Amino acid sequence: MDEAGLSQQIFLDAHTPVVILARPQMGENIGAAARAMKNCGLANLRLIAPRDGWPNPAARPMATVGTDILDRAEVYDTLGDALHDIRFMVATSARPRDMEKPVLTPRLATKQILEEQMQGIRLGTKVALLFGAERSGLDNDELVLADCVAQAPLQKGASSLNLAQAVFLMAWEWRVAGLGLSENTELDAIEGLSAPAELKARDFFLSRLEDTLDEKGFFSNREMAPAVKRNLRSLFARARPTEQELRTLHGIVTLFERDSEK
Amino acid sequence: MDEAGLSQQIFLDAHTPVVILARPQMGENIGAAARAMKNCGLANLRLIAPRDGWPNPAARPMATVGTDILDRAEVYDTLGDALHDIRFMVATSARPRDMEKPVLTPRLATKQILEEQMQGIRLGTKVALLFGAERSGLDNDELVLADCVAQAPLQKGASSLNLAQAVFLMAWEWRVAGLGLSENTELDAIEGLSAPAELKARDFFLSRLEDTLDEKGFFSNREMAPAVKRNLRSLFARARPTEQELRTLHGIVTLFERDSEK
Repeated sequence: MDEAGLSQQIFLDAHTPVVILARPQMGENIGAAARAMKNCGLANLRLIAPRDGWPNPAARPMATVGTDILDRAEVYDTLGDALHDIRFMVATSARPRDMEKPVLTPRLATKQILEEQMQGIRLGTKVALLFGAERSGLDNDELVLADCVAQAPLQKGASSLNLAQAVFLMAWEWRVAGLGLSENTELDAIEGLSAPAELKARDFFLSRLEDTLDEKGFFSNREMAPAVKRNLRSLFARARPTEQELRTLHGIVTLFERDSEK
Repeated sequence: MDEAGLSQQIFLDAHTPVVILARPQMGENIGAAARAMKNCGLANLRLIAPRDGWPNPAARPMATVGTDILDRAEVYDTLGDALHDIRFMVATSARPRDMEKPVLTPRLATKQILEEQMQGIRLGTKVALLFGAERSGLDNDELVLADCVAQAPLQKGASSLNLAQAVFLMAWEWRVAGLGLSENTELDAIEGLSAPAELKARDFFLSRLEDTLDEKGFFSNREMAPAVKRNLRSLFARARPTEQELRTLHGIVTLFERDSEK
């Protein structure tokens, strides 16, 4: 399969990166992580020795749209067990470690994840994102199993993310990079604007407004009049009114004219 | 001050974007949002009518490194009040709205935020990020006050983020873009445009216009009135009138009022 074909498959549930939480403590955080995964299109969660056992009733309310991810979560005793089908793993860490391991920003790590993911689709293997326990992060024995470390350039002295935020950060970066890769136009879409009215219609409105204002003596300072008119025209040029909006504006001018005829 | 000088200042607390939470419900989410802000170097939090009052003891444990942000949080009764020094505001929304308002991805919105932020450093004004209540998001009257809407390309059917995640997403994108900017000073010049008036002044004009139109029976169709008002507000939000232009517009309304008293 060619690159283009592969990039169409990166968002299929079975092919998305596996999120592995090592020794998670709070059920609430596991639930919130599942929601963050779902928000970004990730589907596969593995838990290593969750402190309070599994299932954990505290997880469910926080998961909202992501409860199906909790229902399908796999639980393992050790990290090694959870890696049986993983070919490439990125560990996340808030602090530098004294370890011979490439440390990348999340954005750079994500590029590599996507490449490995496409490779993995060919080979029938998976990639994983590894997150440590809330209090202590990953220990060195866990970290050493990863291919590289993602470390976010956060505020000095405040670089420790909530577990679900860390999951969200990596999931979001993965999603945006993946959408870019599959040349999904969603990414650059600027929606929500109706087409502006044609210039002729805008000009017609502005001329009418000027005439009406003139009749009422708004431009009594003849020297200033051209500048004031230009200002009004600039303002409406920037606004680029739609046809509907021009109708509203015409309504105001009509009211203005009628009102003063009384 | 030149561009390079400005880009050095975008991370100074006083200049960072203001995070505004409209009608937040859960103290836990306010605390988690403060932590996310701190992680990314944001410092200024404003709360509009928090459901459970303020301070809220549930916020503190979730804030961890961000408790100082909670301590300095400002509380306002209405969104309008909170905008007294804001010159540019990005609203966040998970769902498309029927409103004439540019909708950008968080990454594109962030570019604009940084440009406006540097403009604001020159002018002594601020930019803001607006987030809605947990259950319902922003209502249309809140959304219409913003200059544009940031909407993340999340999973279809699962696009509603936890409040603190939404804050984190925007804060993270801002941080990464800002770090890139402060290394790369080749930004397009943003001088040559007069500064838009502050949102409060724009709001004051629009309220006056609405009152005047209302008195004259423009909104005689009560069902349509809110939509027509929103259209007018969207139009002027897009135009971003300068102070000079607002004076001209006020002049027109004054003439309108006086004229009909004859």
